[in-house]
Amino acid sequence: MKLSNTFVKTFREVGKEETARNAELLIRAGYINKEMAGVYTYLPLGLKVIEKIKSVIREELNAIGCEEIQMTALQSPDPWQKTGRWDSDKMDIWFKTDLATGGQLGLAPTHEEPITNMMKKYISSYKDLPVYAYQFQTKFRNELRAKSGILRTREFLMKDLYSFTADEEAHNEFYEKATNAYHKIYDRLGLGDCTYKCFASGGVFSKYSHEFQTFLPVGEDTVYYNKDRSIVLNEEVLNDEVLADLGVKREELESTTAAEVGNIFTLKYKFTEPLGLEFNDKDGKRQTVFMGCYGIGVSRVMGVIVEKYSDDKGLVWPENLAPYKYYIIGIGEEGEKIAAELEESNKEDVIYDNRDMRPGQKFADAELMGIPYRVVISDKTLAEGKAEITDRKSGESKMVSLEELRKEIK
Amino acid sequence: MKLSNTFVKTFREVGKEETARNAELLIRAGYINKEMAGVYTYLPLGLKVIEKIKSVIREELNAIGCEEIQMTALQSPDPWQKTGRWDSDKMDIWFKTDLATGGQLGLAPTHEEPITNMMKKYISSYKDLPVYAYQFQTKFRNELRAKSGILRTREFLMKDLYSFTADEEAHNEFYEKATNAYHKIYDRLGLGDCTYKCFASGGVFSKYSHEFQTFLPVGEDTVYYNKDRSIVLNEEVLNDEVLADLGVKREELESTTAAEVGNIFTLKYKFTEPLGLEFNDKDGKRQTVFMGCYGIGVSRVMGVIVEKYSDDKGLVWPENLAPYKYYIIGIGEEGEKIAAELEESNKEDVIYDNRDMRPGQKFADAELMGIPYRVVISDKTLAEGKAEITDRKSGESKMVSLEELRKEIK
Repeated sequence: MKLSNTFVKTFREVGKEETARNAELLIRAGYINKEMAGVYTYLPLGLKVIEKIKSVIREELNAIGCEEIQMTALQSPDPWQKTGRWDSDKMDIWFKTDLATGGQLGLAPTHEEPITNMMKKYISSYKDLPVYAYQFQTKFRNELRAKSGILRTREFLMKDLYSFTADEEAHNEFYEKATNAYHKIYDRLGLGDCTYKCFASGGVFSKYSHEFQTFLPVGEDTVYYNKDRSIVLNEEVLNDEVLADLGVKREELESTTAAEVGNIFTLKYKFTEPLGLEFNDKDGKRQTVFMGCYGIGVSRVMGVIVEKYSDDKGLVWPENLAPYKYYIIGIGEEGEKIAAELEESNKEDVIYDNRDMRPGQKFADAELMGIPYRVVISDKTLAEGKAEITDRKSGESKMVSLEELRKEIK
Repeated sequence: MKLSNTFVKTFREVGKEETARNAELLIRAGYINKEMAGVYTYLPLGLKVIEKIKSVIREELNAIGCEEIQMTALQSPDPWQKTGRWDSDKMDIWFKTDLATGGQLGLAPTHEEPITNMMKKYISSYKDLPVYAYQFQTKFRNELRAKSGILRTREFLMKDLYSFTADEEAHNEFYEKATNAYHKIYDRLGLGDCTYKCFASGGVFSKYSHEFQTFLPVGEDTVYYNKDRSIVLNEEVLNDEVLADLGVKREELESTTAAEVGNIFTLKYKFTEPLGLEFNDKDGKRQTVFMGCYGIGVSRVMGVIVEKYSDDKGLVWPENLAPYKYYIIGIGEEGEKIAAELEESNKEDVIYDNRDMRPGQKFADAELMGIPYRVVISDKTLAEGKAEITDRKSGESKMVSLEELRKEIK
């Protein structure tokens, strides 16, 4: 991509109302635009990162037999009334709206009710089970506070997966598979070494649920952990009963802040029972379907990756998530010519900074945008027949021959 | 894909409330699910078709230098108040909702206002122009009627592109390019031979706009045309003034029904002026940006393709849009074994119908789902060392050797 061809710009600073570092950097680097508090547009570079995160998640979920669908934002009250969650006292983050033809609709903050309701058409026998269906969907939550940049927003992209099984045993088997898939996903997203499965409250569903928490200074949650014994638990369940359940003492635990990057719930019959999702078992008896749900906030994960990897110069992307791999700067006539050639040979991985601008500004933008490899081709490097490649993460530079460079980029 | 692994089912019939043939067939074939009037979920097969349509559009727009972004559904009133479209008397399809922190928000039925507003941060000089930005976005429209299946819905996927140029000349040049890209898109979507650029009302923006109309018996619009002179105009502009402008007489025109599959508008300064989107020209003078917009309803186009190609047995997909290319049925032990092998060799293109079901039911589902090639491998075909391939469109069958078949599918 030639930088002169994109409308995206970088900014030295953003307005004071943006207090979250993730959003501040993403806005300055031209990845997102703030529409209003808690509502962000994804610009070309930001959308590319989102799509790469989605691809990682999609591949790992498809690998364990999940099917992708796309449900709707507009929700009719009926299934939510049956589970008691239509009432704004029970679910306080609803956006509701009026239908021109009469009646009220809601904007889905989550999709347990509609997917359970829909599955009544597709599940009637034990032969139809298990079902694992997921989507990447825009969720709407009427949050009172939206001050963590893209970590907590009013409109955001979420991957939500729902499992429907014949019984708890089949559920537990899949729950384990989903847990493993989640670990693979966080590994591939560059968060593997600091993301832990964590005991959390099961809410109204069950005693516990599991969160995936990334240890992070700016995380909104506090977790307690004992690394030797692989125990991590959310502050909200730090009580005598839970400590006894886990067989650990309060003084054996350290605490840290963390950001939730995913959660998995055993929902049991919480939704399937009131909505009447049943099947005929092998003996012809009616049984209620056993359910689980598994979420990853896609835009939130992007924000956590930004928080983890950024430094004082700007963003730092893991290579597999970066919108482009190389940021090429040509200095002087010959350098510009070769930079243009390289971009032509691989438009997908290369940004060619062909703007009429001082090299120093281009160097700063390469760092702010967090592109993994900055390539400089100047009269000086060409005197040796070489180009200079600088690693964004380590800051280390090395000289490579033009021949090697062409081979690597192509 | 093994059919036993998907939750999707086919249905012999759907409820009477679904009167549109496109939605009826798509529901029966397991591509979509109706949530409520005018609101549909995309199931795995339907989502695959949507993604293929998006890819075609994306490729052609990227080829003319457009950049993909993703704006938001939630809209603050401010820019819409400035253009006068916040008022529900002016724009009668708004869904509006209340923010928990106070104030009202809208759900975007279109995005002229927010993108023009956003561009004030990215366009300040003639050097920043032109800008061509598009998105695939869920739009919300509070329609009084939603009776045409996925042709007119309350929540739908739209590709909307916006152009920002320094002047009308630059606009016209791009408008021409966009028109050509649209023709290429309809060609690749299998609608090229029956889709025409059509004069339509410019609404409040200008004298004319252009629609792309697909001639179709169930189309909602009536258009008048003279094929020899390549004139097509919407009934809404069939008046003496327009006939004079086009230099055609009423009696030279025939009429037909058609479905709108796209539209392009020259917006001039309609949005940029009230929102103050200006730039410094080469002489340092402030100028208002010239604007255009270009829409394609992605889910609507899918519905039109269904209407055009389906027959009394079900859906018929063009090969490049079909969710899978081959529908393989093995009859007998050896046939099933080879069918399973073929699916294993190419999971992306092959449906293997491994359900415990009569072959006749499988044949009917292959036709209902509209998969381009049905492949039957039975003891009878294997006696000749062959398989039978049937073309969904023509209904013609031919025998091919297993060797050829393996090569083709792999």
